[in-house]
Amino acid sequence: MMKRIAVFTSGGDAPGMNACVRAVVRTAVYHGIEVYGIMRGYSGMIKGEFVRLDSASVANTIQKGGTILKSARSQKFQTREGRQQAFDQLVNNGIEGLVAIGGNGTFTGASLFEEEFGIPTVGAPGTIDNDLYGTDYTIGYDTAVNTALEAIDKIRDTADSHDRCFFVEVMGRDSGYIAMPCAIGGGAEIVMIPETQMSTEAVVESLKSSWRRSKTSFIVVVAEGEEEGNAHTVAQRVKEAIPQLDTRVTIIGHIQRGGAPSAADRLLASQIGIAAVEGLLNGMHNVMAGIVDRKLVYTPFSDTINKKKLINQSFMRMVEILSV
Amino acid sequence: MMKRIAVFTSGGDAPGMNACVRAVVRTAVYHGIEVYGIMRGYSGMIKGEFVRLDSASVANTIQKGGTILKSARSQKFQTREGRQQAFDQLVNNGIEGLVAIGGNGTFTGASLFEEEFGIPTVGAPGTIDNDLYGTDYTIGYDTAVNTALEAIDKIRDTADSHDRCFFVEVMGRDSGYIAMPCAIGGGAEIVMIPETQMSTEAVVESLKSSWRRSKTSFIVVVAEGEEEGNAHTVAQRVKEAIPQLDTRVTIIGHIQRGGAPSAADRLLASQIGIAAVEGLLNGMHNVMAGIVDRKLVYTPFSDTINKKKLINQSFMRMVEILSV
Amino acid sequence: MMKRIAVFTSGGDAPGMNACVRAVVRTAVYHGIEVYGIMRGYSGMIKGEFVRLDSASVANTIQKGGTILKSARSQKFQTREGRQQAFDQLVNNGIEGLVAIGGNGTFTGASLFEEEFGIPTVGAPGTIDNDLYGTDYTIGYDTAVNTALEAIDKIRDTADSHDRCFFVEVMGRDSGYIAMPCAIGGGAEIVMIPETQMSTEAVVESLKSSWRRSKTSFIVVVAEGEEEGNAHTVAQRVKEAIPQLDTRVTIIGHIQRGGAPSAADRLLASQIGIAAVEGLLNGMHNVMAGIVDRKLVYTPFSDTINKKKLINQSFMRMVEILSV
Amino acid sequence: MMKRIAVFTSGGDAPGMNACVRAVVRTAVYHGIEVYGIMRGYSGMIKGEFVRLDSASVANTIQKGGTILKSARSQKFQTREGRQQAFDQLVNNGIEGLVAIGGNGTFTGASLFEEEFGIPTVGAPGTIDNDLYGTDYTIGYDTAVNTALEAIDKIRDTADSHDRCFFVEVMGRDSGYIAMPCAIGGGAEIVMIPETQMSTEAVVESLKSSWRRSKTSFIVVVAEGEEEGNAHTVAQRVKEAIPQLDTRVTIIGHIQRGGAPSAADRLLASQIGIAAVEGLLNGMHNVMAGIVDRKLVYTPFSDTINKKKLINQSFMRMVEILSV
Repeated sequence: MMKRIAVFTSGGDAPGMNACVRAVVRTAVYHGIEVYGIMRGYSGMIKGEFVRLDSASVANTIQKGGTILKSARSQKFQTREGRQQAFDQLVNNGIEGLVAIGGNGTFTGASLFEEEFGIPTVGAPGTIDNDLYGTDYTIGYDTAVNTALEAIDKIRDTADSHDRCFFVEVMGRDSGYIAMPCAIGGGAEIVMIPETQMSTEAVVESLKSSWRRSKTSFIVVVAEGEEEGNAHTVAQRVKEAIPQLDTRVTIIGHIQRGGAPSAADRLLASQIGIAAVEGLLNGMHNVMAGIVDRKLVYTPFSDTINKKKLINQSFMRMVEILSV
Repeated sequence: MMKRIAVFTSGGDAPGMNACVRAVVRTAVYHGIEVYGIMRGYSGMIKGEFVRLDSASVANTIQKGGTILKSARSQKFQTREGRQQAFDQLVNNGIEGLVAIGGNGTFTGASLFEEEFGIPTVGAPGTIDNDLYGTDYTIGYDTAVNTALEAIDKIRDTADSHDRCFFVEVMGRDSGYIAMPCAIGGGAEIVMIPETQMSTEAVVESLKSSWRRSKTSFIVVVAEGEEEGNAHTVAQRVKEAIPQLDTRVTIIGHIQRGGAPSAADRLLASQIGIAAVEGLLNGMHNVMAGIVDRKLVYTPFSDTINKKKLINQSFMRMVEILSV
Repeated sequence: MMKRIAVFTSGGDAPGMNACVRAVVRTAVYHGIEVYGIMRGYSGMIKGEFVRLDSASVANTIQKGGTILKSARSQKFQTREGRQQAFDQLVNNGIEGLVAIGGNGTFTGASLFEEEFGIPTVGAPGTIDNDLYGTDYTIGYDTAVNTALEAIDKIRDTADSHDRCFFVEVMGRDSGYIAMPCAIGGGAEIVMIPETQMSTEAVVESLKSSWRRSKTSFIVVVAEGEEEGNAHTVAQRVKEAIPQLDTRVTIIGHIQRGGAPSAADRLLASQIGIAAVEGLLNGMHNVMAGIVDRKLVYTPFSDTINKKKLINQSFMRMVEILSV
Repeated sequence: MMKRIAVFTSGGDAPGMNACVRAVVRTAVYHGIEVYGIMRGYSGMIKGEFVRLDSASVANTIQKGGTILKSARSQKFQTREGRQQAFDQLVNNGIEGLVAIGGNGTFTGASLFEEEFGIPTVGAPGTIDNDLYGTDYTIGYDTAVNTALEAIDKIRDTADSHDRCFFVEVMGRDSGYIAMPCAIGGGAEIVMIPETQMSTEAVVESLKSSWRRSKTSFIVVVAEGEEEGNAHTVAQRVKEAIPQLDTRVTIIGHIQRGGAPSAADRLLASQIGIAAVEGLLNGMHNVMAGIVDRKLVYTPFSDTINKKKLINQSFMRMVEILSV
């Protein structure tokens, strides 16, 4: 059995990463193995920024946003030479297994690294984007959606008070996973996401139609990766088409990454942190731990990287029905 | 096809009930049928407290806690005579189908009523307790857990500052559904739920053992239905057994029922509200709409009432591992 | 004594406006006089959009963001003809006194209107900007600052996790009233406000100096009215001067206007709403009700419009000391 | 000039204590003097639990609830012998001045200690109760009121949904400082505070009168130090007098002590932390730093302990007007 493992966070930070680190550390302690934290992801792995962690190290971290292990990009890890240095550091520190918390970029690196150097790695899906195959939800997603939704609730106050049309941009470069529940939960009239390619013309038609039914305030949720352009561009075009509409734009932005994780994210992060360590101890490697239909599953990194998790198609219809 | 339906809320209020009512109303409008709200549940049904609802009636309600249709107990509906009056009121108002939002008490009444008078009814699981067979989560559960967890986060501040042991009582008369994620997410050392019957002696032993490992502040989460007694009783006994422990008790109480629903609850309530109306229109009746493994299912009232939804057994082990 | 008064909200909406409307209505009821709400400010006054309000009309509004009376701009009220129409509407509806809730634009209009037509008006300071002479705090200011601060707390999570420098833009076209407590409370290293005209060069020097003391993450709070440019412009220039700094920008924007008012804003709005009505009944007019050093004062509109309320000069020094 | 000072927290914890400790530390660093933290108040002073603090020690603490220096009671410090030991520890560690953060109990000890041993001490008002003469607001008060108010907002959802009367008990052993703004801001019908001695009979009369005006849901805010008894006792008596009233009780309790401090509390705590250190350096001692009418004042401990700060008498009238 392994005697010493290490855990790190990589990619954009997500609420619940600390809850996951905590679960990794305490599961290791529970099973009598040593655990190190690697600071700043692959960058710190190359530089040997290792910190011994014990149960007390992660006390009072479950509710903290961000990541106590920090995160950083590493150009060097993309080179064979950089990965060799990282491996040497692990060997020198007696690390026999890794838990990698992050998204697809993290797992692509982890997968390549394991194939080259044979160090067993289990991934934990830590990203607000929820765009990972192999788990229903990623760690941080539920919190990010709630944060964006609270912002939309506040914007709705102002939209109603002034009879305005707000274009609210939420995160989601490749998918509408964040935008969709924000639109449904925020009572938005329209949602624009990469998956559906709604044209600005269609947005204009829909707003005109609502206007005729004497609606006077509107929320349009726009995913940042929307191909018609970002919220500013779309708002500008709509304003040109309907000059009497009083339009405003809000980019929710980085606020979505921070804050104390929700209950669901703390629970998910804890489940996955335990599963990652126990997976490693049971010989799992080159896989991501996830929860699908409330059951623990391990999915090969190759699948999480290459397969696409599709958004629930019924959601588009829900927005249409609910904004009647 | 039905031309007119009615919706009501019954039992304890839960965050998201309004989001569900809104979805029911707008789905009815979307399908071109009329919809009425019945005030104060079965009590208002008997008295004929019906209100015509349209799309605008439910504008700006998705984020509201409580229930705009109000809720009340009705002794009278438990009599055949009362139910006859309720039926007469429905007939007089041309109501051809019902959406009943509530918990098992609500569905028991609805089921009996449908069997006696043949009025098609579809239920929506609206209760913070999450103890309904036929759906993974009930409307209001996610919000209630988050509310309790935020309270526990605040209590932890004080527990740590004073090296105290807090006994925190959360709702859950028959199950630990609320207590369990609160304990895991709140970093509690111990959780006492009806399902596991942990003795006070075991609690004392566990606290003593942690004390020896030099932990000095503790959170013990107690479900209100815990058979060893409520939080005050348990705290008293623990204090007698470990006099040096500085114990405090907090009953979170009714705060858990209120507040703006979380994103997950708004989404769930919207899905189920739509499903309830479309179920009715498709001939479903005497069933509850629910989401199991992310799929919409209709479960006979008899099953939701008689079958028991078991809590995830792995959660007890999680608390043990995570409080190492 | 007056028998009928009216209340309206004008200018940008602010949390607590509804609490103020509620206090106006209930104070009128308490003193046995009738009260009307005017929808959409001066615009609705011209069009005669008057609504009779009683105690029940304002039940459950104290915690609501935005304004139930709505707000709008009126070009027409800036003409003598428009004001004549507004006056005629008031006379036709028997309105003998006005409570105007808003900022300096609102009071400029109210003052001119009263001088021309002699309708007694008392103002209530409702604006998040806190830039009104004659009151220590305006209604909505405390909530807006707390909202911005919560956002900054979340951004700090991400800034720390990635060792980044965030430029956070908060509202405040002419003053640093919002920016200053956000900077102090958010633990910002630097604050840029219109009053102090800190140059971008000085910002660069300060960041470089902190960098040398091995600080790696920074928050710079920028008031929107900052003359050096908005947050994007400043961030761009800083990035050019310190290329190794990983900079990001967040515009908090309209979120600051919404949300449930804080306790302080509900209390202030209630005090001022009562004072406005009782002022009118006691013959006050052409004045704004405010609280200075915890005492109720009425200040002539001419002073609130022309005199400048200076920001506490000691605050700049506080930011310097606290970011040591 | 002093070269080394120490800071400690004592009494019940309050949100903003950490912001105050942070300001003390950074002001000391700014002025080039050394600063130590004393753990667990007077108890740690006697045991010599001193920790060297620098600027980085207090990074990321401004938003934290509780107190990182912890707090504890000390029987021993109430003896001359205990205080002698405390003094010896201070001398051995070269401590020349103290900043004591706490309430009247803390200052009583500090004042006696200074008179006996001559160690200069400046106090900072850190208590949620706001019952200290010499400052308009105490550190933690604004946050505690907002926390209680958020709870009341949630309870109002349930009260309205079920037409119930809730008795909500908030903290405040000797005064209604917390209860009063909670009642006004929470839209309560009645408030019971130690200062006014409203009888249960008067509560019953008031509720009956509202009931006749067809109000059906009520909030009664009860200060914990209310002489008519706690919320449970009062509710029981009211229930006996008005059996048709559906009564419920919620004790908000320790939740009020925790949580991230509000903007106002962070600002106040920072101002006072700076003032305490600069006061010490300027020869102040045996005084508490406070803010009165937005100006910094130092008040002798003897006055803060013996003089009574009266609650604003106009507040009682406000509750009466606003619940019309």
